[in-house]
Amino acid sequence: MRNPPPSTIRVTYLIETDGEPERLAAKIASDQSTGTFVALPGETEELKARVAARVAAVRRLEPSRAPSFPSGAPGPFNRAEADIDFPIDAIGTDLAALMTITMGGVWSIRGLTGIRVTGLKLPEEYRHAHPGPQFGIPGSRRLAGVEGRPIIGTIVKPALGLRPPETAALVKELIAAGVDFIKDDEKLASPAYSPLAERVKAIMPLILEHEQKTGRKVMYAFGISHADPDEMMRNHDLVLKAGGNCAVVNINSIGFGGMSFLRKRSGLVLHAHRNGWDILTRHPGLGMDFSVYQQFWRLLGVDQFQINGIRVKYWEPDESFVASFAALRKPLFSPDDCPLPVVGSGQWGGQAPDTYERTGRTQDLLYLCGGGIVSHPSGPAAGVRAVRQAWEAAVAGVPLETHAKDHPELAQSLAFFGDGKAA
Amino acid sequence: MRNPPPSTIRVTYLIETDGEPERLAAKIASDQSTGTFVALPGETEELKARVAARVAAVRRLEPSRAPSFPSGAPGPFNRAEADIDFPIDAIGTDLAALMTITMGGVWSIRGLTGIRVTGLKLPEEYRHAHPGPQFGIPGSRRLAGVEGRPIIGTIVKPALGLRPPETAALVKELIAAGVDFIKDDEKLASPAYSPLAERVKAIMPLILEHEQKTGRKVMYAFGISHADPDEMMRNHDLVLKAGGNCAVVNINSIGFGGMSFLRKRSGLVLHAHRNGWDILTRHPGLGMDFSVYQQFWRLLGVDQFQINGIRVKYWEPDESFVASFAALRKPLFSPDDCPLPVVGSGQWGGQAPDTYERTGRTQDLLYLCGGGIVSHPSGPAAGVRAVRQAWEAAVAGVPLETHAKDHPELAQSLAFFGDGKAA
Repeated sequence: MRNPPPSTIRVTYLIETDGEPERLAAKIASDQSTGTFVALPGETEELKARVAARVAAVRRLEPSRAPSFPSGAPGPFNRAEADIDFPIDAIGTDLAALMTITMGGVWSIRGLTGIRVTGLKLPEEYRHAHPGPQFGIPGSRRLAGVEGRPIIGTIVKPALGLRPPETAALVKELIAAGVDFIKDDEKLASPAYSPLAERVKAIMPLILEHEQKTGRKVMYAFGISHADPDEMMRNHDLVLKAGGNCAVVNINSIGFGGMSFLRKRSGLVLHAHRNGWDILTRHPGLGMDFSVYQQFWRLLGVDQFQINGIRVKYWEPDESFVASFAALRKPLFSPDDCPLPVVGSGQWGGQAPDTYERTGRTQDLLYLCGGGIVSHPSGPAAGVRAVRQAWEAAVAGVPLETHAKDHPELAQSLAFFGDGKAA
Repeated sequence: MRNPPPSTIRVTYLIETDGEPERLAAKIASDQSTGTFVALPGETEELKARVAARVAAVRRLEPSRAPSFPSGAPGPFNRAEADIDFPIDAIGTDLAALMTITMGGVWSIRGLTGIRVTGLKLPEEYRHAHPGPQFGIPGSRRLAGVEGRPIIGTIVKPALGLRPPETAALVKELIAAGVDFIKDDEKLASPAYSPLAERVKAIMPLILEHEQKTGRKVMYAFGISHADPDEMMRNHDLVLKAGGNCAVVNINSIGFGGMSFLRKRSGLVLHAHRNGWDILTRHPGLGMDFSVYQQFWRLLGVDQFQINGIRVKYWEPDESFVASFAALRKPLFSPDDCPLPVVGSGQWGGQAPDTYERTGRTQDLLYLCGGGIVSHPSGPAAGVRAVRQAWEAAVAGVPLETHAKDHPELAQSLAFFGDGKAA
């Protein structure tokens, strides 16, 4: 009997060059695995061959007129998609090694005028090698007490500059308004004017009191990020001990190490904000696709993943958001590794029909409205009702304008936010 | 008496837009600090004002014809440098908060066709807030036993695919050749064919035996990176217990969390490889300057920092390397926070004169030659001698060709590597 072929990690690169893409693909495979420059005896060549990356396919695309990295060359710039297979033996299952070996060096290669990682297919060896989400979609629903519709959330604003009592006053109003979820702005962790300990002490009693009265516990995501994992765990513990169940983590700022450390010890739902991500993806010829990036963070244990939405205030076009949502919905190894997509930025309910239609008609999402709830002309409670009405209409396939005829809060939203005021 | 004005963190951005740079600078300041959308009572406005970022200056530059991010606009694209001051109260001294608040969101802003962070000036509050390098330049020199000249290092190749006994055989040859420093390729940590424990067991006796015989301990940097800080510490401990004194850490792959955790517990010189960095800096209109990036990692505790060199095999032009070297040489708060610059990629001694002249005539560097030592026609020992001869010539201001007349190893190097074979 023959042994099965060894597992490989397949990485797909979009290559752009004024040279030959096939040659650059071969260079990536060589540079990123065995490299060269010493001749070795026969037995070693065999092992080297076993861990060497191999170009499996190169598919030429239309050349581009403009280079992604500035180039003195006149162009056109040849483009191709290359699949490169890395033997699992060369990398193992450590995510830092995966990042270093498959991507670490590719953006430094001379002769490329552009390179973007567009695909990553992990083998079975990764199935049980990482913790993945601890709570994910079912845990988020259970803790927020929301089934059969999107979880409706909002953000405390202004981002910076509220003292804990002022924050608490706003939170009290938001709880009374009927939101399911509230979060600190991602820029807020524990500054001197609002130490996390004081913010937790001011906010958690309001959450718990509301739970006692109504049986429903609003999920509050406190900002706990810190470059030092020990400090971050102290922040985590403060929230958990006070009865909190969720935390905002700025994944790019804490890195794989911070996330890995936290997930192993966490009792909180981990709500990931990906600030800083745009520099890795906004240029279509450079960086990487979200479908690649998100795999790392899901394996590391993100429970809720912020990914913008339809008609956002940022640069990201709707198609990019739709692709990100689809990536999060696709199991890596099992449905349990799917985090809850968090749809936000300029949302107010008006985007509910398009969001629903373009994301596979799922209601498994956290729909995050800042101004769209808080700035509703009749106040936050009307804002929450309007967003829920918009989702009811979206799911029923009823136009918002029709549904608004007997839903006055939605009618007000349409009149007020229809011109873009929710951003 | 009036209070002194509060400290600020000054961040400089290169802004590119088909609109007005002044308007975009104001938007960055607003988005990245207090944001908007809720009217607040008077007292709160005062605090909000205290933590709000402010545009201190906008300096128009020549417009650019091509946009950095692809844009449908016809151009020209207006460019300006903007200084924005962030009050220390808004951020504190946590480096994750610093990254999130000053940079996290800027690449997502609509209306910008390019944005690059070109300056970061930290206030006094940061002076004692972070560990910084534990060993730095003096510690690296002391442990490697090298004074008065550059530390000469090399890399074990091939990058992947050697079993520990094969690695040890190469290391034995390199030690005998007289190198001061040897490192694992950054892509090597602890794969199944070369577990770190076995590699340490095969290599450290050679280092220690040589130390016993000669009194000089070759510094060997073992790859210890892992996404999980606990695993990374186990790797660290393996090296330390076996008598090792240095480790390669892939800083971007472990993140701030991994680096912070490691530094607090480390007994090893931390040699930083910045693989992945190029995507953040290669496009001149996007990302950030090394002078900004390196401040974070120095404060976190990098002892030795890899930064390419003159005439490297990668994309980076010499001027960019020279600027990176200058950035590392400039104290943030004290000379103790300067890591040892590690100059590498395609180096063989031929670049010694330009390196010396263009980096302020310092010999405080680790000069890393791979093929430039190993592939010397007369073997590694001749390779090491040739590199030292090249540095002697550079420091003496003698042309390499002149010095080569009575230094045969250098003469061989000039003949062999002069045509680019060291890459």
